[in-house]
Parts: sequence; structure tokens; C-alpha cells
Amino acid sequence: MKKSLLSLAVSFAVTCSGAAWAQGDATDLEQRIANLEQRLEKAEQVAGDAESKASAFEFHGYARAGLLIDDNLNGATGTGPYMTAAGALGGAVGRLGIEDDNYVEVVLDHNINREDGSWSKYRIMLADSVETNNEWTAADSQLNVRQAFAELGGLESFSGAFTSASIWAGKRFDRDNFDIHFMDTDIVFLSGAGAGIYDVQFSEDWQTNFSVYGRDFGTIDSENLDVENYIVTMNNYFGQWQLMLNAMTAVDNEGRDVTDTSPSKRAENGFHGMLAYHADSFYGVSEGFSKSGVLFGQGLGAELKGIGSNGDLNEDAKATRLFSYGVTRFADNWRIAPALLAEYSQDRVKDGDEFMWATVNVRMAQELTKNFEMVYEGSYQYMDLDNGTEQANGSYYKATVAPTFKLDTSGVFFQRPEIRFAASYVDWSKDLNDYSVSLATDANTMGEGGEFIFAMQMETWF
Amino acid sequence: MKKSLLSLAVSFAVTCSGAAWAQGDATDLEQRIANLEQRLEKAEQVAGDAESKASAFEFHGYARAGLLIDDNLNGATGTGPYMTAAGALGGAVGRLGIEDDNYVEVVLDHNINREDGSWSKYRIMLADSVETNNEWTAADSQLNVRQAFAELGGLESFSGAFTSASIWAGKRFDRDNFDIHFMDTDIVFLSGAGAGIYDVQFSEDWQTNFSVYGRDFGTIDSENLDVENYIVTMNNYFGQWQLMLNAMTAVDNEGRDVTDTSPSKRAENGFHGMLAYHADSFYGVSEGFSKSGVLFGQGLGAELKGIGSNGDLNEDAKATRLFSYGVTRFADNWRIAPALLAEYSQDRVKDGDEFMWATVNVRMAQELTKNFEMVYEGSYQYMDLDNGTEQANGSYYKATVAPTFKLDTSGVFFQRPEIRFAASYVDWSKDLNDYSVSLATDANTMGEGGEFIFAMQMETWF
Amino acid sequence: MKKSLLSLAVSFAVTCSGAAWAQGDATDLEQRIANLEQRLEKAEQVAGDAESKASAFEFHGYARAGLLIDDNLNGATGTGPYMTAAGALGGAVGRLGIEDDNYVEVVLDHNINREDGSWSKYRIMLADSVETNNEWTAADSQLNVRQAFAELGGLESFSGAFTSASIWAGKRFDRDNFDIHFMDTDIVFLSGAGAGIYDVQFSEDWQTNFSVYGRDFGTIDSENLDVENYIVTMNNYFGQWQLMLNAMTAVDNEGRDVTDTSPSKRAENGFHGMLAYHADSFYGVSEGFSKSGVLFGQGLGAELKGIGSNGDLNEDAKATRLFSYGVTRFADNWRIAPALLAEYSQDRVKDGDEFMWATVNVRMAQELTKNFEMVYEGSYQYMDLDNGTEQANGSYYKATVAPTFKLDTSGVFFQRPEIRFAASYVDWSKDLNDYSVSLATDANTMGEGGEFIFAMQMETWF
Repeated sequence: MKKSLLSLAVSFAVTCSGAAWAQGDATDLEQRIANLEQRLEKAEQVAGDAESKASAFEFHGYARAGLLIDDNLNGATGTGPYMTAAGALGGAVGRLGIEDDNYVEVVLDHNINREDGSWSKYRIMLADSVETNNEWTAADSQLNVRQAFAELGGLESFSGAFTSASIWAGKRFDRDNFDIHFMDTDIVFLSGAGAGIYDVQFSEDWQTNFSVYGRDFGTIDSENLDVENYIVTMNNYFGQWQLMLNAMTAVDNEGRDVTDTSPSKRAENGFHGMLAYHADSFYGVSEGFSKSGVLFGQGLGAELKGIGSNGDLNEDAKATRLFSYGVTRFADNWRIAPALLAEYSQDRVKDGDEFMWATVNVRMAQELTKNFEMVYEGSYQYMDLDNGTEQANGSYYKATVAPTFKLDTSGVFFQRPEIRFAASYVDWSKDLNDYSVSLATDANTMGEGGEFIFAMQMETWF
Repeated sequence: MKKSLLSLAVSFAVTCSGAAWAQGDATDLEQRIANLEQRLEKAEQVAGDAESKASAFEFHGYARAGLLIDDNLNGATGTGPYMTAAGALGGAVGRLGIEDDNYVEVVLDHNINREDGSWSKYRIMLADSVETNNEWTAADSQLNVRQAFAELGGLESFSGAFTSASIWAGKRFDRDNFDIHFMDTDIVFLSGAGAGIYDVQFSEDWQTNFSVYGRDFGTIDSENLDVENYIVTMNNYFGQWQLMLNAMTAVDNEGRDVTDTSPSKRAENGFHGMLAYHADSFYGVSEGFSKSGVLFGQGLGAELKGIGSNGDLNEDAKATRLFSYGVTRFADNWRIAPALLAEYSQDRVKDGDEFMWATVNVRMAQELTKNFEMVYEGSYQYMDLDNGTEQANGSYYKATVAPTFKLDTSGVFFQRPEIRFAASYVDWSKDLNDYSVSLATDANTMGEGGEFIFAMQMETWF
Repeated sequence: MKKSLLSLAVSFAVTCSGAAWAQGDATDLEQRIANLEQRLEKAEQVAGDAESKASAFEFHGYARAGLLIDDNLNGATGTGPYMTAAGALGGAVGRLGIEDDNYVEVVLDHNINREDGSWSKYRIMLADSVETNNEWTAADSQLNVRQAFAELGGLESFSGAFTSASIWAGKRFDRDNFDIHFMDTDIVFLSGAGAGIYDVQFSEDWQTNFSVYGRDFGTIDSENLDVENYIVTMNNYFGQWQLMLNAMTAVDNEGRDVTDTSPSKRAENGFHGMLAYHADSFYGVSEGFSKSGVLFGQGLGAELKGIGSNGDLNEDAKATRLFSYGVTRFADNWRIAPALLAEYSQDRVKDGDEFMWATVNVRMAQELTKNFEMVYEGSYQYMDLDNGTEQANGSYYKATVAPTFKLDTSGVFFQRPEIRFAASYVDWSKDLNDYSVSLATDANTMGEGGEFIFAMQMETWF
């Protein structure tokens, strides 16, 4: 091609005559452009169709799976972030290297985006959690549908404070839930079936979300009556401050079965509140982020994390929880993530019971190569537990070192997938060995401490 | 174009001089076109690959999920389109606002399209249905594989009447099933494992589908013998008329366990037929569509909807069902969908029993804005039931109003997703309160009527 | 660009008289090229995004589903490739036409490909297997998560022998498992939770894979102690030779429940080895492939297929297995796939027991049209079984003819989907009728032979 153009130019320069054959080249260019236009039109359509199909469907997920081995070369049972006596109260410790379950979440989304700017998202989530290492787990399978909801947004009919609002209905995890990843604990985990509205903008600085959730506590068999707990929730964002308020009622909760372990008088109402500060720096001293706050609940609201999920709370239950955690880089190849979570509750199940626990956890990562880092976690929990019948107090300790592979260690703490190997040592005060928060005679206890645990595990989310 | 280029060439030939530097531009154009061609080739390939991958995979689904609350602020149990005494006979009522289950279907397709025009589709469907509002439903999970089948079509080896035919095998819902959406009832719901052929064209006006389905009724334990029901089905389409014929046999059905509630003599054979008219207008009077027809069955065929799915039918069972429903627009912003479904059966389980029920349902939608409509549903069912031991007759009433959000209310009744809120009042004749079609002593009854039910729910399909 | 074109136009205007209108055409070409360039840039981006999304997600699967009917027109129970008395020992026979289960695998992958050449793959597999033909299978559902693992490869930090290596962790089927498809039996099927490294290249001719897998055998209830079996595996490839070595230990296995049917003394250790030759021709005589080899195992390693999956093996158990199979074309429209699998084991469960079985299977396909072929399978198994208490020996015979539809019969044996109809005759020596390898009094036996089985089935993988 270049050659014939050169010829064309030369023929122009030298003679400017006999240009009739040059017409062929011009026609050729013209023809090639016309061909390009046609092909491009088709390619645009194909690309658009493909993009539209690929956008309509989204695949997301979470998984952790692997192997935990104790120092007797056996399966490490009873381990995990809720392994302490305070675990039954939501008292998590650091998770690194001690989670034995193979847990997966499969999220399938179907999106519609219309030209008028309106959109919908339908999401379904399947999840499973098993302890067995075997590959056929039908007998242990917990596979279930955890979420199925639809959202509508960008609606022309919404205006004023509602211009940017979206509405939802179905069964879901609330959009505003957030967690301390390192302890596998949500700060708030509100979920259930219901409906709500997000992103109502009352003023430039005040954004609000409202929802109603229902949850089930079980049945009153004599009348085959479902006892449901209805939770009205409101989240208010004022800049970096979040104020969450929840009120709930389960009108027939007291009528449920009474056993030795059930509450003195089952609560039928509850209140729950959280004030949180979401900082976009590490406590104002370095890059990263930090989140701190306080939660309070009474009655059915005294289950501070899984809001409204616990029907076995006493009418007079009161609980307060503090949290603070953050993530930053403190040297060229070092990251750190300290976390604090502490709770005090009383009259929780039986009148007069009193529970206090506090966890401090620190995770650090030392980036050694592009694909390899050493991760360290130290975790300490103090417990002072009195279920009204028995008392125990003491401490839990965990130290973990975890050689970790990933695609890029220069990313943040939250880049996945990770393939990690871990060695942990866990121990606790002897006083806690046989203690259980539950009054049930067959309740699990911590057993004896002083154990090494070895792990090989993958973790991913996307 | 060619013409003007020719002129250009001619003008060069006649006058040109000093055109040498123009060569740079021509080369530049040429180069840009060559670049474009190369880039386009790659883009076409990438787009093609992406489209091919996006077409090979398809994601489809159905879901309804949300919250039902009764007027005592508790879970509304026992509600739904089959909540009446006639529900056990397939006597559905209007579904709007009274469905409590969280029901999902996840459909994943894998398609192959070959250059010779042949194609295959593999489909798998997972489904789940739970009543609980909680998000971890492992204990209640019904998650199961409802369909797994493959279809082959466009086969070169097929000719004549079979030119357009496709064949299938596996487990599936028959392709020709259709429903009255508003009452959550299929007119016919044929399903099971088997094989068949669709779209055989015997003449211009006669198109036929054949299949064989197997279903299980349970086992005869002493011999560990599966009792299976084999159904031969044929669907004939003559223009808008459909004639469906089904014959079935379950040779050892009579040998199954005998209890007080089992049939006088279990049927081992059955026949089922349907004549239907699919109109592409609303009964010839306005735009929309309507479908009307009659079903008849005897023996194992007396289960008129779930063809061949019921092994507890009497040898002499006879049943006839009428249906008619349609959808149209009757004013600028109003849509209406009336439906009628009625059945008479006798000697169904016990010799001498006799059941009659008839449902009339009307759903209307009033489009108020682009994204909001009020939906109304009135439902009435008359029942006259005699199970051979006890008789009852009476009526069921339901009235529902449902504020509904969607992306575009100007669509038809079947545009989804919808997010709806609903208030319903249901009541029925006192005579029906304690009546059950089943002779089992612990069979569910309707209980007492006169109840308000509130709902918030999403529904989607895609 | 515009500037030089302007110059071109001016030069035309100055020196080329009568060329003025031609300028319009040049500008037009220029403009069209510029438009094309802009559009192409966008199309490239859209195509790239779509391709990237479509590559990030992959959908794979396997399914077989359909209907099996015996000659009494009932469900054919107890059939399948493991239907003989030797089936409990892994003694498979030919599968064609006798598999009654509806079995599905759903594989969802999430891939990341980074510009530095590193990549990750996350895979989750759901699977289900039910016998029922009904479409709502919640009561029988076996739906479970069989795999959930992540792989990382192309890591910059890997060099030398590890340059091409990838690492994995999670729960998986080992990558090096391979099977005799026609008998639905893996030669080795190693699976479980763990971690490993693939594609370590010690020399040009020596490639090695290492992994550690854990499996569960059950619990010792008094201490709530998981008994886990840890398997260290190494696969070495020297050209077409494969040497697999496995060592395993389950330190507390002997402490599990003792019953009449449990081993004389449960093994707590095991060794397993396989030497295999993967030929890229049909035994050197024609095109196709063939695989042959020998397996040996003792103690926990005496389960030769499902390595380390059986905790009920005797301390002195010893087993040897031979296999050989291949696939070739022996005439224009004929394919053949012969297979041999034989095992001898002793002291397997009880001291002194002794089991021998050998299966010969031949599958042939006769391509009749582009979309239709007749498939034939003959299967013979000899068994000589002595569980220490009872002895039996005899033979099993199966002959199957299967008219089969597919998109292209000229493909290999492994092109899918297939829709097949099959008629089989199975029979066996009377001596085997009531024999069971298991000592349990309620163990399944073969029952009486001499039966026709009819099948309609789909099978696919992708």
C-alpha cells in the first residue's frame, strides 16, 4: 500500500499526468473507509451487546477454605474467632490462622440500566459453611439462600430529598453493615426480610436511610403462630458521623417455650442505637482509615451486632459496646491494623447476670517481595462473666505468624485472593476451661488451652 | 463517491503542480486507515470473543421475597394462593399480597451455536422456598435442582416434518406449560425426567410436540421397588388452538402403603386432555391477550394441573376443569386482568367423594406516575366439598390494594422487578373453618377468617 | 491534522484551478477517518471491558439426567457402574445405559489476569445427585459445595525451578486426577482440603507437583475429636511417564467406634503409589490415546482410587490395581474404546479376607449421520470375593445399544452434549445374588439378574 502511494506522489511530482490510474488508489481508500465504517458499525453493536450482557450479569463472592491441624496432628475443633467463653456473647478474637470452616458466598446479580437513568439490581446470595475437609459434604451441607432482594433507583418519579434515593424489598443484609474484618465480626449486622429506602438527602449534610426488617424467633406451637420481630431502622449520616437508631417489637415473644435456660422474662420490645465516626485517616495521624463508636441496646436490642436476631433476651437486658479500629502503613513495607472491641451487659438472660469482655487485636503485614508477605496477629481478650449461677474471669491469648502469598503485596490489607500458611499459639486462664455463658448442661466450654494450631488456607472476595 | 473522486483525479491531471507536499497528507491518511484496519480487526475479534462468551452463558431467574404481617403484628402463617380448603385440590385464589414464602429460581444456561446452524442448550435450575425471614436458612433450606436438561436443534440430519424440530432429554418443566400468573397456578404443569421432541411440523397448520416423562410416587419397601409413573404427552397446535393429550401408567402403584387416608383403590393408569384457545386479543374486544379452555382427566390423570404427579388418586377418579383469563387496557392508565378457574371432581380419593370449587379473580393496575402504580385485586372462591366423610360449602373473599414501584408502569402486567406494599383483607364462611379435604386427623384447616394482612415484597423474573 | 489538510486545500486553491470542490471530498474522507478513529477507540474500550468481564467469569459444568425403566415398567433401582458385589470395592463396570441418578456439577470461576503476567483463579463447584425423577427434590437433595479453592500463578517472586509454578489452597479435586470415563471411575481421585504447588520443573524432563490434603473420617465422640487423615502427595512426570507417591497418617483412627463390621485393627498410616504411562497414540498402533498403569497401596493407602478417603481399612490391608484403556478410530465411521481394570486386595477389612475382581469394557460408536450415531457397550466383570466369613465368585455381563444424538458425530468420544436412548441387558452368576462384601446384616446385595433396562438420558460437560 505504502508503495503505491509513493508511486502516486512521485507521478504527481514528476509529471502530473496520467493520473487516471491514481483514481484506482483513491477509490481504494474510499472503499477501505466504507468497509471500515461497515465493519465498525457491526463491531460496535457486537461489543455493545456483549458489554450489555456482561453488565447485566455480575458474579461476586467470598470464600475461605483450607485445613487446620492441631499439635496432635488432628483436626482442630472448637477454634475460631468465637472460640472463647465470651464468644457466645459476640466476643470475637483475632481470626487469622484459627478459622476451620470452609465458608463460601456466591452472589449473582441481574442488573437493568435504562436510558432514562433508572436502574434495578436483583441479587441472590447462596452461602454454605462446613467443617469437614471431605469433598462430598451433602450430609453436612448448610447451603442456603441468604439474600434475595431487588433495588430500584434513578426513578423519574422521585424528586426533592428523594431524587437520589433507591428503594428495596426482599431479604438482605443491610447496605450499611460494616465489620472489623480482622476479628470476623460485624459492628452491626442487620438482616432479614423487609423493605426500605436508601439515600434520602434531607440537606447537604444529612443523608438518611430507612428500612423495616422482619425476623423469626420460632413458633408458639399450640397455635402454630410465628413469632416475628419487626425492626424499624434509621441510619443518619452527617459528614463522617453515623447515627443509627433501631426500635423493635415481637409481640408474642413471651409466649414461647420456657426452659431452665430461657430468660427470666422474654423481652417483647427493644431499642438499639449506634454512634460511629468514619475517619478517612488513621486517627488523624497517618494515611489509612479508622472507625470508632459506641453501641447501646436494651431488651431485644441488647444483641448489639445481629440487631433483632436474638429472641432469648431478658426484658431488662442492657448492653453497651465500644469499638475502634484502623488501618495504616507505618514503614515502607509494613502495614498495621489495631482493633478494640469491648462490651458490658447485664440482666441479659437472667435477672442479675453480668458480662464483661474486651478484645484487643493487632494485625501487621511485612511485605517481603511483590508476592509474599509475613503477616502477624496478636490477640488478647479479657472476660469477666457471671451468668447468675456461675462466675469466671480470665484472659485469652493468641499469637499467629502467617506466611502469605498474593498477587500484589503492595495493595492494602483487603486485596484478595490470599493463600496463607499460619502457625498460632492459643492459651487462656484455667478458670475459663469449663465455663459457659449458657446455663444448658451440655453447653460447649473452652476446654483446655495451650495449643499450637497450623493452618493452610485460601481467602478471597470479589 | 466514485464520481467525485474521478473528478478529483481529473483535476489533478489537468492542472496539478506543487502537489508534492500533499503526498505527506495522503500517506498520513493511508497510514491512519491501515492503523484503523488493524485495530478494527483486533476489536472485532475481542468483541466476537466477548459476545461468544456472553452468549454461551445466560443467567435467568425468578424471585419473590419479603415480609407478611398479620393484624396482630405477627407472621401471617397459612396464607397464600392455596390457603383455602380447596387449595389441596389445586383451587388457587388471587396471590397478590398474601404470599409469605421467599421463593427463588436460579437458571444457568450453557449454549453452543455452530456455524452449520445447529445449536444446543443446557439448562440447570436451582430453586428454594422458605417461610422464615431470617437470613441464615440452612435449617429450613429447600434448595434443590429442579431442572437439568439439554436440547439439540437445527440438526442437519433432521428433514421433512422434522426440519425445525429440536430434541431434549433430562429433567425439566415441559416447554408448553403455561399459567394464570395472578393466581400462581399453572394451567398445566408437566415435569419430570424423560425425553421428547418439539416443533414437529406435520402441515402448515399443525405443529406437534411429543415427550415421555417419568415421575416417582414412592417405594414399595418390602421389595425396594420404585413406583414410577410414565406419562406420554402430545401437544398439537392448530393455529391458536391447542390440543394436549396425556396417557400414563404406574404399574405397581396399587401395591404402595395403605392407610386410612389412601384411595379406595389406587389408580394405576390415567388419561388427561386439554383443549385450549390462545387468543391474541382480549376476547376479541380489545388489545391484549386471553386464554380459555377445558381440561379433563381420569384415574391418575385426574390431577389436572401437575399432570401425573399425584399417586394418591382413586382408580375411578374423574375431574374437569375450566379456565379463562385475559389481560387488556381499559382506559388510558388502567389495565385489567380477569381470571376464572373452576373444577369439579368425584371419586377422587374415596369412592363417592365429590368436590367442586370455582375461583374468580380480578387484578387491576392504575398507573399514577412513570414508576408508581396502584394495583388492586379482588378474589372470590366458592367451594362445595365432600370427602365422603364430611361436607362443607362456603365462600372465600379477598380484597387487596398494593402500591407498587417499577421501572416503567407503562409496560404490561408482566414487567419486573416490582417492589410492592400491600394490604389485604381475607375472610370466608365459618362452615369452612375446620374443614379439610384430607381425611388425616392432623390435616391443616383454614382456621378462622376475617384478617388483615400487610405485605412488603419484591418480585422479579428475567 | 486539520492544519495540514488546510494547507492542502490552500495549495489546491492557489495552484490547482478547478480543484476547489474536490477539497470537499478530501475533507470528507478526513472527517470520516477521524470519526472512525473516535468510534473505534470507544468500541475497543467497550469490547475490552466486555471481554475482561466475560473472562473474569467462567461457567463450567457436568450433568447427566434422564429416565431409567426396567422391563416391568418400573424404576430401575440399584443399577449403575457400581452395581455388582465388587462395586463396594471400586469394581466399576461399563456405565452406558444403566446410570439412574440425575447428577449435576455447577462450576463458577472468577479469574484475575494482571499485566505483569500474574494470575489467580478462584473456583467453586456445587454438585447434586438424586435418584428421583420428580422436579422438586428438596427432600432428597444432596446439593453441596464440593470445591472451593484459589490458585495463584505467574508470580514474579517465583524463579528457577518454580518459574512456571502455581500454588493453591482450599478444597479441591486434585488437578492430576484422571478417569476411565466409560466406567465412571477415576484412576486416582484425590480430593480434600489443603494446599499445594504445581508445575515445579526440576529439569527439562522432570516436572513435579506437591500437595497436602486433609480428609475427615468421623469423630471420637467422648472427646469430640475430629479424626483427620493427612495425605502428602507427589506427582512426578518424566515425559509420558507419571509416578505418583502418597503417604498418609490419621493418628487417632484406631480410637473410632468398633462394630462387628469394622476392621480387625483400623490402619492409622498408609502408603499409595501409581506408575502410569500416558501414550499419545492408541497403544502405538493407531491414532488416539491410551493410558496404562499399576497402583499399589497398603494400610490407609489400600483404597486405591479415592486416595485416603476410607478410614475403615485394616492395618494390614494391601491392594494392587491394574488399568489400561484407550480410544481410537478403526474404520471410517467407527470409534472404539476398550478398557481393563482389575484389583486384588487382601486383609482389607478383616484379617484373612481376600478380594479379586477384573472388568473388561468395550465401547464402540458407529457414526451414521452428522448428528446420529449408534453406540455399543459390552462389559464383563469377574469377581472372586471372600470377606472372611462368606465367599462368592462369578461373572457379571452387560450389553448395551444406544442410539445417540449430538451436534457432530465426527468429533471424538468426548464431545457433548449427547441425547441418548439405550437398551441394556444385564445378568450375572446366581452365586452372587445374595452376596455382599460388607459384613453388615442389612447390606445391599445384587439381587437377581437377567433384566432389560431402558434409558433416555442427556449428558453434557463444558
